Amino acid sequence: MNALHTDLYQLTMAAGYYQAGKTQDRATFEMFVRRMPYNRNFFLVAGLAQAVDYVLNLRFDKAQIDYLRSLRQFQNAPTAFFEGLENFRFTGDIFAVREGTPIFAGEPFLTARAPLVEAQLLETYLLSMIGFQTSIATKAARISEAAGKAGVVEFGSRRAHSPDAGVLAGRAAFIGGCVGTSNVETGFRYGVPVFGTAAHSWVMSFQSETTAFEQLQQLLSDATVYLIDSYDTLEGARIAAGLAKPMWGVRLDSGNLLELARKVRVILDQAGFTDAKIMATGDLNEYRIIEMVAAGAPIDLYGVGTDLATSVDCPSLGAVYKLVELDENGVKRFTAKFSLDKRTMPGAKQVFRYATHDEVACEWECASGDAEALLRPVILNGALAEPLPTLTEVRDHAASALKKLPRVCRSLYGHEDAFKVKYSTKLLDVEKQLRNSIAGAGK
Amino acid sequence: MNALHTDLYQLTMAAGYYQAGKTQDRATFEMFVRRMPYNRNFFLVAGLAQAVDYVLNLRFDKAQIDYLRSLRQFQNAPTAFFEGLENFRFTGDIFAVREGTPIFAGEPFLTARAPLVEAQLLETYLLSMIGFQTSIATKAARISEAAGKAGVVEFGSRRAHSPDAGVLAGRAAFIGGCVGTSNVETGFRYGVPVFGTAAHSWVMSFQSETTAFEQLQQLLSDATVYLIDSYDTLEGARIAAGLAKPMWGVRLDSGNLLELARKVRVILDQAGFTDAKIMATGDLNEYRIIEMVAAGAPIDLYGVGTDLATSVDCPSLGAVYKLVELDENGVKRFTAKFSLDKRTMPGAKQVFRYATHDEVACEWECASGDAEALLRPVILNGALAEPLPTLTEVRDHAASALKKLPRVCRSLYGHEDAFKVKYSTKLLDVEKQLRNSIAGAGK
Repeated sequence: MNALHTDLYQLTMAAGYYQAGKTQDRATFEMFVRRMPYNRNFFLVAGLAQAVDYVLNLRFDKAQIDYLRSLRQFQNAPTAFFEGLENFRFTGDIFAVREGTPIFAGEPFLTARAPLVEAQLLETYLLSMIGFQTSIATKAARISEAAGKAGVVEFGSRRAHSPDAGVLAGRAAFIGGCVGTSNVETGFRYGVPVFGTAAHSWVMSFQSETTAFEQLQQLLSDATVYLIDSYDTLEGARIAAGLAKPMWGVRLDSGNLLELARKVRVILDQAGFTDAKIMATGDLNEYRIIEMVAAGAPIDLYGVGTDLATSVDCPSLGAVYKLVELDENGVKRFTAKFSLDKRTMPGAKQVFRYATHDEVACEWECASGDAEALLRPVILNGALAEPLPTLTEVRDHAASALKKLPRVCRSLYGHEDAFKVKYSTKLLDVEKQLRNSIAGAGK
Repeated sequence: MNALHTDLYQLTMAAGYYQAGKTQDRATFEMFVRRMPYNRNFFLVAGLAQAVDYVLNLRFDKAQIDYLRSLRQFQNAPTAFFEGLENFRFTGDIFAVREGTPIFAGEPFLTARAPLVEAQLLETYLLSMIGFQTSIATKAARISEAAGKAGVVEFGSRRAHSPDAGVLAGRAAFIGGCVGTSNVETGFRYGVPVFGTAAHSWVMSFQSETTAFEQLQQLLSDATVYLIDSYDTLEGARIAAGLAKPMWGVRLDSGNLLELARKVRVILDQAGFTDAKIMATGDLNEYRIIEMVAAGAPIDLYGVGTDLATSVDCPSLGAVYKLVELDENGVKRFTAKFSLDKRTMPGAKQVFRYATHDEVACEWECASGDAEALLRPVILNGALAEPLPTLTEVRDHAASALKKLPRVCRSLYGHEDAFKVKYSTKLLDVEKQLRNSIAGAGK
């Protein structure tokens, strides 16, 4: 499944590990984010269910292997490499935070420990799947925070980076707090509530707005959302209110949304539609929404498209997947990078979440006091350790975990060390020892 | 195929068109971009092959239809709607520019003319597929332009918005001028040349850099690219040069790439490796590359990841798909939006490309003089009009079409009206008449 959705060098390295007799080496890789990007005070990890599905079902078929054989990079590759691909099964372990957990820069949120070839092969797919969904879930959490009591619906499929990204964006946005999505496949595949009624083309396809509205109301009854800005928003609101039939409400998609919402609210109320809701859409994001919320806009639901489905101000999480230790024939060796801008900490780790901070510790350390160990077994010896949570459980976990963070973390603007990530003394010792041993070896 | 990869309202509107007896209406939709975003002087249209595949193969299966039946939005939907989905085939026409054609704001680059339900249903998928690939092909063209004689390889799969987006990004980047991609599936599926040899984890998995390099050279011979910055770049270059065996070259991934490339070039030359090449990677984009090129950096190949695969400075094309005319029982009606920020021009159009400008005209107009009609039939009556070009033909077309544009269009910075798009007098007349008739109708 999706075996070739990877960077070529993962496969050339795999061939090289066969050649070098390193297939029995057991490697530990960790996934983490080096720096919090602009205006982010947490990341909401998402995409784990799809990542797990990939790891459990990764197989190479004959056509794929034949293609690799045809590449010049594999002309000298050992036969055992191709046989290894034919029989490929992931046999190692994956540890990860629960999907929907907020995480911070500098702490691992997924650990893969497996024979070197297997662990290496996962890198590209996992980074893409988890990195993307995490970006979107995070953006959705920010927008939902801004919207306060109003709901947020993900409407960005048309702007997503490919149709498949649109499906996943709807899933991730739901985890981050959206009440639903316009993407039908997201609803079909993941059970996310789906929203949407009609576009401007619907209104324009009828000779009059009134006819368009009547037809829509006949179809949708009390689920009807009238899109009222095709010609004149207030006139559209009056036509909708004049139909005197049940509706869910109206949608505004252009103009000064705050001012229009106020005027439309009056029109609806005066016609007796005090329960009818107002939805707003059109180039929205957390900054525009919080401004309207602060002004007391009578808007019940926000639909957010482009900015959410592409996480436009932060379109890449920048997660990395780094080798931190290697067990060669029973001899364990830590690995790290010491360059200033790309430092990695050696050895497998655990992350303890305390009320006020996280502590990144060596995996064999214990917590000191009341803490949660964030990295939990997900796959052990190539099999699922326990059933994955449902999507609703993931969403609930995200909401409750976010609530437990200091308020400053939910700010829409970046705050240095909004949540402190500390390294344990022992982990810092391990790093120091490795640094000294490498310096001592003249390397 | 991917029938539910769409916004719900496309399907509620379809149900409504059945209810309203509008299934015989013949609609014309056009896809275009309203405004050139910051620093873009053209867009390179890409993704048409996948869009065509979708249109030709769009089907609804039973499970998908059952899911729709279960939604409250379809409780009143007419039976004919569900039967229509069961038997769905696209029976209309698609006109589009050749894939790889540079286009500008305000001109249609794809036209769909079909029964209203069919044309409406395509919107979300086409916008996502074409919008994304167009963004990436455009970004790739900018980066390739900056790189001058050096090649550019797309390396961003891990940052793409989902694994599938990574595959498509590799394809689109190739159209835009990249020489290849690291994405293996892109190579397998589309025949794009694949690049990549080893990561830092390869070097770190061996006890010494020398052993890591020797093993890589044994595997790859003259295709070997040594990644030399794991510990110390210049020392890495000396080790590579000391092996005295054939290599393709070396890769620099950190530090001051310009300075390091110069020093590494000297090390390689002095060891007799005057043909060995230098590749540079690490947070690159068109702006950083052009600076190195201008300084005469001895770099032969640039690998670009995040910024390319996410088009980071412009992660959404912002294309729209708008109803421009409707034929109801043989009576043709033009449609348009007149709001200042979201103006659309009525009626089906043709785009004529002259040497100095484009002219957007009514579809029935003729060119005045030496011009190319950009919109060509792709699908007629639901069938492919002619075989699609190969990916190499698309890439060649893009290169030659870009070369024909005024030099200013290839600038990395935005120039107002770098290429002028004019509306024909007749088209402006049509708009004026429609505007008057609507005003006259009190709407």
